[in-house]
Amino acid sequence: MADYDPDNIFAKILREEIPCMRVYEDDETLAFMDIMPRVDGHLLVIPKTPCRNVLDATPEQLTAVIKTVQKMARAVKSAFDADGVTIQQFNEAAGGQEVFHLHFHVLPRHEGVSMRPPGKMGDFELIGEHAKKISAALA
Amino acid sequence: MADYDPDNIFAKILREEIPCMRVYEDDETLAFMDIMPRVDGHLLVIPKTPCRNVLDATPEQLTAVIKTVQKMARAVKSAFDADGVTIQQFNEAAGGQEVFHLHFHVLPRHEGVSMRPPGKMGDFELIGEHAKKISAALA
Repeated sequence: MADYDPDNIFAKILREEIPCMRVYEDDETLAFMDIMPRVDGHLLVIPKTPCRNVLDATPEQLTAVIKTVQKMARAVKSAFDADGVTIQQFNEAAGGQEVFHLHFHVLPRHEGVSMRPPGKMGDFELIGEHAKKISAALA
Repeated sequence: MADYDPDNIFAKILREEIPCMRVYEDDETLAFMDIMPRVDGHLLVIPKTPCRNVLDATPEQLTAVIKTVQKMARAVKSAFDADGVTIQQFNEAAGGQEVFHLHFHVLPRHEGVSMRPPGKMGDFELIGEHAKKISAALA
């Protein structure tokens, strides 16, 4: 497996070199909006410390991240009055990974509503409104 | 959210009322082959104690399961000489869930090989061979 690249975009987000729409953080994890949302409310959960993906994560990183994933799954279900939640986690390019810092996708889902195709930039103003709804659900 | 149904098929597998092709277990978790594999080596990780999904899981269940997910991700990558691993976890029907006992899908992936469509029963003999490869990788 390749080494961790400290210049991946999530590392830059963690160093605040580039912005993100954050909805939650604690000492070990950060949750922020996916800017190519496949559903309204699509967010990402990452550890604050470096690892490439599940294959090289420490037990501490995994434990911290999955607890925040649960917190965010409950929050997006409430914020969007969703019927369900889909969680995805990709490891290496063949596994679907595009940014090589461990991340879990959390997607609120509604009956009869398919996910949008991947790779399309969302409307930042709308994503910002969704972030506020999630933050409100967490408050 | 609906209550946990103790007659779901994974509960029956845990009570050994119906068989499964198991590849790993510890005190808290069980890993076994998906009989509708979307790729060769597709397996499931579940807690041995009841919960419906991530939304109602305890921290202990989540922590135990994610550690086994990591173990199995590494094992399938090795067993199938995979280029990556995809992890999926579905909550409630709208989120993609079909069996209402918490489970994570672990899928070894190869460059250029798409997942097969869902819902198609696999060849049990072949799945059994894949289970043996994974068990060997864990040994």
